[in-house]
Amino acid sequence: MGLLIKGGEIVTASSRYVADIWCEGETITRIEKDIDPPAGAEVIDATGKFVFPGFIDPHVHIHLPFMGTFAKDTHTTASIAALVGGTTTYIEMCCPSREDDALEGYELWKNKAEGKSACDYTFHMAVSKFDEKTEAQLREIVKDGMTSFKVFLAYKDFFGVYDEELYKTLKLAKELDVIVTAHCENAELVFQLQQQLLSEGKTGPEWHEPSRPERVEAEGTSHFASFLEMTGARGYVVHLSCRAALEAAVAARDRGVDITVETVIPHLIFDKTYAERDNFEGAKWVMSPPLREKSNQPYLWNALNSGAIDTIGTDHCPFDLEQKDMGKGDFTKIPNGIPGIEDRVNLLYTYGVSRGNLDIHRFVDSASTKAAKLFDLFPKKGCIAVGSDADLVVYDPNYRGKISAETHQVNNDYSGFEGFEIDGKPSVVTVRGQVAVRDGKFVGDTSRGQLLRRR
Amino acid sequence: MGLLIKGGEIVTASSRYVADIWCEGETITRIEKDIDPPAGAEVIDATGKFVFPGFIDPHVHIHLPFMGTFAKDTHTTASIAALVGGTTTYIEMCCPSREDDALEGYELWKNKAEGKSACDYTFHMAVSKFDEKTEAQLREIVKDGMTSFKVFLAYKDFFGVYDEELYKTLKLAKELDVIVTAHCENAELVFQLQQQLLSEGKTGPEWHEPSRPERVEAEGTSHFASFLEMTGARGYVVHLSCRAALEAAVAARDRGVDITVETVIPHLIFDKTYAERDNFEGAKWVMSPPLREKSNQPYLWNALNSGAIDTIGTDHCPFDLEQKDMGKGDFTKIPNGIPGIEDRVNLLYTYGVSRGNLDIHRFVDSASTKAAKLFDLFPKKGCIAVGSDADLVVYDPNYRGKISAETHQVNNDYSGFEGFEIDGKPSVVTVRGQVAVRDGKFVGDTSRGQLLRRR
Amino acid sequence: MGLLIKGGEIVTASSRYVADIWCEGETITRIEKDIDPPAGAEVIDATGKFVFPGFIDPHVHIHLPFMGTFAKDTHTTASIAALVGGTTTYIEMCCPSREDDALEGYELWKNKAEGKSACDYTFHMAVSKFDEKTEAQLREIVKDGMTSFKVFLAYKDFFGVYDEELYKTLKLAKELDVIVTAHCENAELVFQLQQQLLSEGKTGPEWHEPSRPERVEAEGTSHFASFLEMTGARGYVVHLSCRAALEAAVAARDRGVDITVETVIPHLIFDKTYAERDNFEGAKWVMSPPLREKSNQPYLWNALNSGAIDTIGTDHCPFDLEQKDMGKGDFTKIPNGIPGIEDRVNLLYTYGVSRGNLDIHRFVDSASTKAAKLFDLFPKKGCIAVGSDADLVVYDPNYRGKISAETHQVNNDYSGFEGFEIDGKPSVVTVRGQVAVRDGKFVGDTSRGQLLRRR
Amino acid sequence: MGLLIKGGEIVTASSRYVADIWCEGETITRIEKDIDPPAGAEVIDATGKFVFPGFIDPHVHIHLPFMGTFAKDTHTTASIAALVGGTTTYIEMCCPSREDDALEGYELWKNKAEGKSACDYTFHMAVSKFDEKTEAQLREIVKDGMTSFKVFLAYKDFFGVYDEELYKTLKLAKELDVIVTAHCENAELVFQLQQQLLSEGKTGPEWHEPSRPERVEAEGTSHFASFLEMTGARGYVVHLSCRAALEAAVAARDRGVDITVETVIPHLIFDKTYAERDNFEGAKWVMSPPLREKSNQPYLWNALNSGAIDTIGTDHCPFDLEQKDMGKGDFTKIPNGIPGIEDRVNLLYTYGVSRGNLDIHRFVDSASTKAAKLFDLFPKKGCIAVGSDADLVVYDPNYRGKISAETHQVNNDYSGFEGFEIDGKPSVVTVRGQVAVRDGKFVGDTSRGQLLRRR
Repeated sequence: MGLLIKGGEIVTASSRYVADIWCEGETITRIEKDIDPPAGAEVIDATGKFVFPGFIDPHVHIHLPFMGTFAKDTHTTASIAALVGGTTTYIEMCCPSREDDALEGYELWKNKAEGKSACDYTFHMAVSKFDEKTEAQLREIVKDGMTSFKVFLAYKDFFGVYDEELYKTLKLAKELDVIVTAHCENAELVFQLQQQLLSEGKTGPEWHEPSRPERVEAEGTSHFASFLEMTGARGYVVHLSCRAALEAAVAARDRGVDITVETVIPHLIFDKTYAERDNFEGAKWVMSPPLREKSNQPYLWNALNSGAIDTIGTDHCPFDLEQKDMGKGDFTKIPNGIPGIEDRVNLLYTYGVSRGNLDIHRFVDSASTKAAKLFDLFPKKGCIAVGSDADLVVYDPNYRGKISAETHQVNNDYSGFEGFEIDGKPSVVTVRGQVAVRDGKFVGDTSRGQLLRRR
Repeated sequence: MGLLIKGGEIVTASSRYVADIWCEGETITRIEKDIDPPAGAEVIDATGKFVFPGFIDPHVHIHLPFMGTFAKDTHTTASIAALVGGTTTYIEMCCPSREDDALEGYELWKNKAEGKSACDYTFHMAVSKFDEKTEAQLREIVKDGMTSFKVFLAYKDFFGVYDEELYKTLKLAKELDVIVTAHCENAELVFQLQQQLLSEGKTGPEWHEPSRPERVEAEGTSHFASFLEMTGARGYVVHLSCRAALEAAVAARDRGVDITVETVIPHLIFDKTYAERDNFEGAKWVMSPPLREKSNQPYLWNALNSGAIDTIGTDHCPFDLEQKDMGKGDFTKIPNGIPGIEDRVNLLYTYGVSRGNLDIHRFVDSASTKAAKLFDLFPKKGCIAVGSDADLVVYDPNYRGKISAETHQVNNDYSGFEGFEIDGKPSVVTVRGQVAVRDGKFVGDTSRGQLLRRR
Repeated sequence: MGLLIKGGEIVTASSRYVADIWCEGETITRIEKDIDPPAGAEVIDATGKFVFPGFIDPHVHIHLPFMGTFAKDTHTTASIAALVGGTTTYIEMCCPSREDDALEGYELWKNKAEGKSACDYTFHMAVSKFDEKTEAQLREIVKDGMTSFKVFLAYKDFFGVYDEELYKTLKLAKELDVIVTAHCENAELVFQLQQQLLSEGKTGPEWHEPSRPERVEAEGTSHFASFLEMTGARGYVVHLSCRAALEAAVAARDRGVDITVETVIPHLIFDKTYAERDNFEGAKWVMSPPLREKSNQPYLWNALNSGAIDTIGTDHCPFDLEQKDMGKGDFTKIPNGIPGIEDRVNLLYTYGVSRGNLDIHRFVDSASTKAAKLFDLFPKKGCIAVGSDADLVVYDPNYRGKISAETHQVNNDYSGFEGFEIDGKPSVVTVRGQVAVRDGKFVGDTSRGQLLRRR
Repeated sequence: MGLLIKGGEIVTASSRYVADIWCEGETITRIEKDIDPPAGAEVIDATGKFVFPGFIDPHVHIHLPFMGTFAKDTHTTASIAALVGGTTTYIEMCCPSREDDALEGYELWKNKAEGKSACDYTFHMAVSKFDEKTEAQLREIVKDGMTSFKVFLAYKDFFGVYDEELYKTLKLAKELDVIVTAHCENAELVFQLQQQLLSEGKTGPEWHEPSRPERVEAEGTSHFASFLEMTGARGYVVHLSCRAALEAAVAARDRGVDITVETVIPHLIFDKTYAERDNFEGAKWVMSPPLREKSNQPYLWNALNSGAIDTIGTDHCPFDLEQKDMGKGDFTKIPNGIPGIEDRVNLLYTYGVSRGNLDIHRFVDSASTKAAKLFDLFPKKGCIAVGSDADLVVYDPNYRGKISAETHQVNNDYSGFEGFEIDGKPSVVTVRGQVAVRDGKFVGDTSRGQLLRRR
């Protein structure tokens, strides 16, 4: 038994060639010009298609109590959506709040996912407070294989950490050689600007962006970078949205700070006019950091292509229209999130590679390989190589279609990307040697996904 | 027949795994966990060693009439030195001067190399003047497969181009989709500063750096970037030596200019105090741009590691001590060059990877893969993949030794790197499926190298 | 006899107070709280008005053979316009072309002006070529009191200098302690872009800006700064128009280069849409560097206010509509210039001080004092102090009116500023103790102006 | 009666001329070429000397409970030292701690100074916490004429404010049009680095700088700038010490933030090697931000000269050797301060103007006029003009001497500037028309100084 992918054009972060891939059990064991299928082997004809390493979404929310409600996906719905969209591994934010016990939170998140995910996954462990007890728990959690933390400089008194906690988290991370991902918006400025706008009767979703302007994010980014520099820790800025923040990160990197940067698909595709749509429709496009001035987009694409931005995630976080309505009359109560786990790869391929804004190798690198390396999943994930997990995406670049909530898998009653053209689509997707998507449809096993313990 | 590399740890720009590689004829045809050697196959035991794709030196001089003399290497000596050092492809600067006919120059260089090189090679075609006739010739030369140009902003009236020529070269390059490599120092400033220093009696090699200070290079780099921006051409800065110049290049890239950057091994390893050594010994370390203040080095390493610097070359250009002596009493007459084709990979591995300054994948990328991509050699060169040329380096990371002119292959009576420790060395090197270096010794065929016609 | 200015609020670059000013002959001799007018004294009641030091326009063209025609003003018309607008000293560009003899040019310009100007004036001496003969002449001209040069990086083969000439001009300037003003646009890029646009049938005035985009100016500015840095000379960038160029200048200043910056009133007031007006009307707003994207304006105002931009001039250069028509069908033939000598002070006061964008002391400094200091006119000009020339502007901040060609003094049949509101106006203007403007009308002597020999 | 200053060369921020100054009562009433002394007038012969406006030290500590002890000066000793050094106005930091009541603090400081100062003074009112009561008190204090606040981003839990307090302070300042001065070092980073160094046994004064490195100050500066940008308040960075911090401030100013910058005399004169002196002698040079790498100094001088740095203060704060000894064995307990109120003007004149690093007008501007404008003391203070206070410094540029604790006035048993040459010295200093220093000796009235209520 085994799986043979025949005749595809294999494209990785640093190679491109036509060959056959033989998967034995869960693993790629052989790459050769022309492999005769052994008896009993399943053969996938990839002729005329690309074969990519399974994509990794380094930033999603599935279980998430937030702003008084819960994000809509289960690990089952989210993982199916991921796979249909070509993502074979996701990293979920495990986000207990300041009030919660970190270890209990970690157990809760693990339990929610266990046996429910169709693809592999792991967690960034949020550090929402830092005290002696939490420190001990974090050491346990790292030992359990969760080698990345998440801190919020935003969300004062809920997820947010104070400077002392930030410093100590980074020192611990340095000691344990753990990378720290960070949401970089200054909590206080957001809070104060929100209060001020509301007090002026500015309550609609169009005021979300002005409540957390670019400078607030640039400030958070440079603050985080300074703390990295002083502790020597490795950092990763999540969902960077604008040029000002990128300049802060790049300046730090140029002076030797170990800082990497993620942007997310909404910031590449949407600008802030979406959130300004009438009749509260704008609420669909409320996320944080908010959608920005259009002028940032060419700059972000350019940086993604040059490698100044390292990775591309989604910050996937579905709230349905009823939930979004909680923020009618008060934009600060609109649950934040623009789900994208299903659409990231197709949109990046379409508006990046197909439309000439992104080198195909940087596409693979930014959406898979670089995240694998940064988060200790490499070379098990993120590459097509002998010995790697047989997570493969046979991608049809000739497909033409449109995104629609009517056909999507994510558990949500709208799509922010409704009507967007896509110039390609996964045809077959495998999870550790098993076909999970065929002809673009999910055919996998919703309990097959494993928690990826790292190191 | 065929060649089997067994049990090595394959490391490419984006993957790392243990597997066997089967080469059939000149090509890699099979990568598999455990391949039984067919009868008659040559088997190389790579256990405990790295297997890297053959390295590419994107910037060497072999045949070079310069400053009234000729560089010392032949294509035979240089290619042997290259191979012993792990470099399986070099790109030579084909450098007719302003006085010469471009096409005749091209033919001359091709003739010099043909049948004399032990490894593959290609040329950057220098554009030392631009007129109607030259333009027509350049079109022919590009058609012949030389898809990269070289321009000099330095060397007034010898190699150097004027702004009008620069513009027209870039427009032609844009039309033909040819990348333009550039030596970025302002010719006039160098000339004037040289005259001034000499007139003040400052004639020793220690005055070489002050005659072309960092600002002169930063100026050239930003000038080149402006011309790229206005023409839309793709550019590549060769042998960038300092932070000021890098800032100019990075600023251009950040605003969307298609500019890539090479540094060379001497700028990573040496600082300007070498060229200040007594008794004219400093002349050994005279190259242009000159060796700089030591404070630039951590910045260059950091940029190489982050990808802000794309590639690493040598500007290999051997002149022996007698030739260097031509510049006694007038530093402007010291033939420029610090040969390094043999030492680049070992020094980069040692002072980069082994000493903790460079990620091993960026090592492969910067010394091989990225150059292959930029100069249309990919995926034939620059990766280990089915279908690629079987140019492979079995690298022994346990070797410990020192560089010495007594043992080196390059045709020169000294080594600038004399006595430098190295923490690794190629054990076996193959050229298109044939072993050319075994146990660190050249055992290849000095006529096997082919001219790589691109596209 | 004498002149007494009573009760005005004196505002200089660094003081503000109410006092009387007594002028004896050509000079201010006494400043006191309350001066009794001696018998026979002329008394000007300045109550409720500002008293400013006479303004200095550091950048005007009067006699100018350019693009096949001549600018329209005589020294008489221009100086009357200047005075009515509050400018009591202008610095004219003495602009022989490459073909002309420098000394003959200088004599010609002096002769044109002598006895024809109603106010004082001096020259920036253009260096349009640099050879031995010219060098000797420049030494003479500097000895004659012209302690500032002008170089053009634009206007290839007409006014423009080559790098060698630029270097030598700056070395001479350094030796003679002469400041070098520079038009910073890369000549070659302008020329090539012009040819390309014309070849594409893009011939209207709206193509003037794309033929010399911001990068071309930023390139020229950083090129000039590099040459200043290498020679140690003092430089002054004229008519800087955009953020990119300013960043180049400021970066140089921050690293210690002696570089100062002038912007001109059109770049503060107009954006490029003016030059895009239909029916060739745009030709009125064709100057170089061209009018820019509106987004540059807040940046320029901010820099003027903070002092990052030092001075404000006009690049006054009137061509009438018939002359502008020479460029119908070919924008490169539109005579360049937007006259402003008469309107600079009122526009700067109005859109700067009155509308809240400019500190009143920086207003005086940038439009008078700083230019006096930079160009060796201080403290004779540029301040209100005992011993200074009695060039005074009694300014009525309560005046409200509009600019119109129907009422202006400059010799031109249109005004680019037609219809612009102004919030103030000179009521009385004196030239060395003599009233030249009264109630806003010229009442002076058109032969009174003197050539200001400096040092 | 009255005072006549005869024949001096008057130099202000924007003028320079020889004239006589007549002071009637406390005020300058007449400036004229040649004034005959009325009967009974006191006449000062200023021939061959400069006459400057009285200098303003915008940043001093006199009464200061700090680190468990009190700064040594009284208002009497400090004001005498100030006057002897040419400073006629000082702005003291009124610094109640977080524990103290703001209004009580203000009353305490006022009482300490009242009737005890030989020259005029005012206060920056420290905001060490922000709550409802404090807000109300601050409004009272502003009404009482204290139109500038001081915040500390350093000194966690003692003087330092949290982000919420910072925001609210700035909003209040914006509402009241009050400028906010800020000590910009991140409190948390300082605290943590201190703990870490101490835990490693690094306890001497040489560890003071590493406990608050440049990045910590750059971080504080950009943090403050971001809060200014979001609130629209006017800010002023005190005692900026290094290039990295200046770049943060200048970048903010360039994008339109209303931010000004002060450096202090120790950062221009000393580098960090002073604090590294043996046998605890380094403690004399412990202040915060600490003395820096020497390479910062040319950059600071250049910025001061160009106006990128606005003002120059001292952060005067004398602790004697016995007090410094409190920090033996623990550098964090060394009372911070390098007194300089007496030496600032002479050192700035000497190492700036006299040695060619500072334009004489910028000297006056940065040490007097600009502070007067920023802090609402202008035009009463900061200029020599009819109607201004007759605070005048007759300065002898021919004096040559050395600074020594043996001769200084400040109440301290050492001088950090011991042995430093000075190239000039105040000969006569007046306080509102009365001679307070004659022949370099204090002859004034120690109760004459008034509290300057502003607006």
